Amino acid sequence: MPNAAQLLVSMLDELGRITDEPGRLTRTFLSPGMQRANELVGDCLKAAGLKVRVDSVGNLIGRLEGAQRGAKTLLLGSHLDTVRDAGRFDGPLGVLLPIVALAELQRRGVQLPFAVEVLGFSEEEGVRFGSAYLGSEGYTGRLKPATLKLRDADGVSVLEALQRWNGLTSGRSKRAGVSALHLKATHEPSNLIGYIEVHIEQGPVLEARKLAVGVVSAIAGQSRFKLTWTGQAGHAGTTPMALRRDALAGAAEFITGVEAIARRTPGLVATVGALTVSPGAANVIPGAATHTLDVRHAKDSVRRSALMRIGRLATQIAIKRGLERRWQRTQENGAVDCSVKLTARLARSVQAVQGKALSLVSGAGHDGVVMSTLTPVAMLFVRCRDGLSHHPDEYASPKDLAVALRVMVDFLERLAAEYRG
Amino acid sequence: MPNAAQLLVSMLDELGRITDEPGRLTRTFLSPGMQRANELVGDCLKAAGLKVRVDSVGNLIGRLEGAQRGAKTLLLGSHLDTVRDAGRFDGPLGVLLPIVALAELQRRGVQLPFAVEVLGFSEEEGVRFGSAYLGSEGYTGRLKPATLKLRDADGVSVLEALQRWNGLTSGRSKRAGVSALHLKATHEPSNLIGYIEVHIEQGPVLEARKLAVGVVSAIAGQSRFKLTWTGQAGHAGTTPMALRRDALAGAAEFITGVEAIARRTPGLVATVGALTVSPGAANVIPGAATHTLDVRHAKDSVRRSALMRIGRLATQIAIKRGLERRWQRTQENGAVDCSVKLTARLARSVQAVQGKALSLVSGAGHDGVVMSTLTPVAMLFVRCRDGLSHHPDEYASPKDLAVALRVMVDFLERLAAEYRG
Repeated sequence: MPNAAQLLVSMLDELGRITDEPGRLTRTFLSPGMQRANELVGDCLKAAGLKVRVDSVGNLIGRLEGAQRGAKTLLLGSHLDTVRDAGRFDGPLGVLLPIVALAELQRRGVQLPFAVEVLGFSEEEGVRFGSAYLGSEGYTGRLKPATLKLRDADGVSVLEALQRWNGLTSGRSKRAGVSALHLKATHEPSNLIGYIEVHIEQGPVLEARKLAVGVVSAIAGQSRFKLTWTGQAGHAGTTPMALRRDALAGAAEFITGVEAIARRTPGLVATVGALTVSPGAANVIPGAATHTLDVRHAKDSVRRSALMRIGRLATQIAIKRGLERRWQRTQENGAVDCSVKLTARLARSVQAVQGKALSLVSGAGHDGVVMSTLTPVAMLFVRCRDGLSHHPDEYASPKDLAVALRVMVDFLERLAAEYRG
Repeated sequence: MPNAAQLLVSMLDELGRITDEPGRLTRTFLSPGMQRANELVGDCLKAAGLKVRVDSVGNLIGRLEGAQRGAKTLLLGSHLDTVRDAGRFDGPLGVLLPIVALAELQRRGVQLPFAVEVLGFSEEEGVRFGSAYLGSEGYTGRLKPATLKLRDADGVSVLEALQRWNGLTSGRSKRAGVSALHLKATHEPSNLIGYIEVHIEQGPVLEARKLAVGVVSAIAGQSRFKLTWTGQAGHAGTTPMALRRDALAGAAEFITGVEAIARRTPGLVATVGALTVSPGAANVIPGAATHTLDVRHAKDSVRRSALMRIGRLATQIAIKRGLERRWQRTQENGAVDCSVKLTARLARSVQAVQGKALSLVSGAGHDGVVMSTLTPVAMLFVRCRDGLSHHPDEYASPKDLAVALRVMVDFLERLAAEYRG
């Protein structure tokens, strides 16, 4: 499929030029750029023979009815919004690749027995309202009242933004506004086959293993903390080592210990990404050190048990060094298992196309997290250069995109064959 | 000497109110506050029977001739400048205490066979020109041409400031200006007995040992560095531990290792006081970490050998973790030994007054560092609360000041007896 892969690359390029900010790629929830992106991708969907609509939360939905009447629906998609100064692949790949795959099947004269919906979610990155997954939450009927009240930098709430997007007059009451939005799930779970998301890996594993694609076994659960160590500031020259209560030395021992725990716990990642020292002068012993801690694992039980060990480590260090330590939990997301059955089918296609099916854990969150509450989920990761994402240099090679495309076509063909026979 | 100690406390309080900045104590080199301080302390010197002059670099000098003709001179002093928002003790204590001690000896009818000069150095803290010891460097004839060219925040050079202070017309050539300043040593070393400086400890050792005073065996040598560790930034969720090159984790291992080296090297202090992480986000693996390193010891050989071990540690960590590390030396001062003979005499008086003579190393620099190039030096440290200095809460108790005063009187009496007999 060299032509199909070529088409996909040119579609990614074209979509990558649609932005809210001149000179760099930024498309946020319900923005003018997002509207134009929906129009462009909508045209692509129509060209591939899908019926196009945009739902009340701005999700672009292309639907292809199945050859069998009353057949279930397979969902394929990802998000069309981006971070600020984004790359072209994170999100759009998972929307555009299925379109090209469906067009390729059409070209081959393959008629799918089941219905397909290609989904371009309007929000996954959390840029505009500081809350992620608004698109998939809307699609699955899971937008919470608290989320509707969130406000963007201009003071516009999610609800008001949705009302404007849907052309609802602001004169109506808020309650009428909400009900007029029809924020309900689009599908009954029983009518769905599952949800497949193609996404760049955003990490270095496929590159290290020299593989174009891999299947995702789970999306890691995540705990995030802010830790503060308090000791005693003092003169760096006049305070003997034995009389010190050095907050940074305590934090350093903790960071080293957390790294050791993560290294000996397969699949666990733990990161201290930000750290500040007070008072922060060369000749003053640090009186306080504050840092973040981010811990992720595909299994919640493993993450929780690691957090217990990390907590004991902090206590030991604090007692030994006479430091005070404070924990503040700033984020907590449970792990999401991908569907064993659906993932096995996807892995079978990966095996057929690539000769080797690697299973990996997604350390980052994806629309699949929310979609898993509605239907079985499987994800295909595509190798990206240097594991880089959320950056204009984000890159997946045309060759790897071609592999991903062949996997998707193979997957759809095999699934169709199963449904038929 | 309850009355003498009381007098010392009230003199410290009064001097502590003479400031360049309303609301907080700040007196810098050749400032109006410094001029007023010289006038106040000059009056105290005169009241104690000393002849007073101010030299060309602003040092206040009170001289008491000895009972024996052509006798040598004992120097007693410290500095009258302060850091910004200073305490009352750091510096002034070493100028005022000798004045009160000499007055006490007079009261007792003791005539010293040798001459005494009480020195109030005009600059030790390095606040105005970023270069410390200007007062003692001027007194010992060691002000370097490069130092004279340093400029303050208003663009005024040290030379220009000295010319103005000395009322020299600015029309003269710079060369004439320098020679007109008579920047030569006041004394031949052969005419001096030594220099004694009383200073608050600025550290916690005396407090921990429950002692009012102690003698100083040496002023520590000091090396200061800026270190930068460079690794690879990456996604905290998607980069497995084994594929990371985490700059902060490397720095943390280094900090822990440096602390261990310092702990097992008696007398060594090593401090990482400032640290910054880049990019510094909770969900990004640190790509770079930059921090200071301050290492001090009373023996240069011990400090150098510790620095070798610390250097090897950094190399090992860099190789093991695939990090780049850069060292930049930002300061280097050799250690200064106090005079064994003079310190033994001071210790004898400490023993007599306090019952126990503790010898400790000064981790901070003092005027004694420069004075040691001219004459034997001894220092008496006075306990200060919580080891705190360079802060308005800096505090030494009247009881401890009384002990220090009795030590000084005892020292002068015994030295006088030796000279007489």
